[in-house]
Amino acid sequence: MLPTPLLAELVKALQCLPGIGPKSAQRIAFNLLERNRDGARRLAQVLEQAMDDIGQCESCRTFAENTRCQICNSSNRDRSMLCVVENPMDVASIEQSTDFDGVYFVLMGRLSPIDGVTPERLGLPLLERRLAEGGVKELIVATGTTMEGEATAHYLKQIAQRANVTATRIAYGVPVGGELEYVDGSTLSHAIASRREY
Amino acid sequence: MLPTPLLAELVKALQCLPGIGPKSAQRIAFNLLERNRDGARRLAQVLEQAMDDIGQCESCRTFAENTRCQICNSSNRDRSMLCVVENPMDVASIEQSTDFDGVYFVLMGRLSPIDGVTPERLGLPLLERRLAEGGVKELIVATGTTMEGEATAHYLKQIAQRANVTATRIAYGVPVGGELEYVDGSTLSHAIASRREY
Repeated sequence: MLPTPLLAELVKALQCLPGIGPKSAQRIAFNLLERNRDGARRLAQVLEQAMDDIGQCESCRTFAENTRCQICNSSNRDRSMLCVVENPMDVASIEQSTDFDGVYFVLMGRLSPIDGVTPERLGLPLLERRLAEGGVKELIVATGTTMEGEATAHYLKQIAQRANVTATRIAYGVPVGGELEYVDGSTLSHAIASRREY
Repeated sequence: MLPTPLLAELVKALQCLPGIGPKSAQRIAFNLLERNRDGARRLAQVLEQAMDDIGQCESCRTFAENTRCQICNSSNRDRSMLCVVENPMDVASIEQSTDFDGVYFVLMGRLSPIDGVTPERLGLPLLERRLAEGGVKELIVATGTTMEGEATAHYLKQIAQRANVTATRIAYGVPVGGELEYVDGSTLSHAIASRREY
């Protein structure tokens, strides 16, 4: 018996967070009540505002508060390089660890007709219009290496060809700093097959 | 650059959750926005309500929405057994895994005069009045085995003696199902010192 039904409700609601099960949810609930009520109130407020106000950028489809995201609005980005990624988290990863200064296009998924994920759902007609407008010189494809990611990459290459835009793909292989013995087999065989002269 | 300042704010606010650092907060924020906005809105609402409405039970000091918690209000509990624990999470643990059907007293800490945690801060005068009223036959002390926990247990024993109530302490030793070789040294030496005939 938890001491109050509201506490039980809080423990249940916290489990909407990915990776948080019943035990962690209970620990979080008690901890917030005992030590950080102000932080929790602030979180509640920001959470609600974010869920209501964050929509999609009309230009690159990533998360944005207004019609356009900060990256598409920035005057410091090179609009001739367009990087296509599967989801907004990928944009954040690239922004945080590389010096890429082009712009993005976010698919919000990957092609999977069997699950109803069609080119239209991924906003590819919007991408085609953008390439047709001119200005983009290179389409950098950074989709994953799953079967659907590969199919999506193939489809994107066709779109680029139709628009006379160079399509490139980011490099896949042994992670930098990785030791060969710890790399999984399929990565290793891809790395061997994709070897280059140096 | 995160695509919107509100998203950056959400990532920061999520870090009030114990055990959630910047990386996990970012993953959680994107995941909620992409997949579970309704769950997140519900969480925001319950979180705010819980922080505002949950106070302390006037009888046992655990978390409660009203003046008394559900356990103190229940007519199915044996009021002659009073279990003293350090915090509300301990009550939840005992309720979830044992068939203890007495009532509780929650200290919300442990004696540590150096940090300003005095017997008054732990509600011990309230506990003394409760013992003086009669009805309690056994005071079960379930504080931790830290130095402060031991000092608190010692203080509680004195309170019980003054009120002519039996004080007992839960058993500490090798965890059930545990193998000796994996048990830490101080637990093991306590287990040997506290050996009993059987």
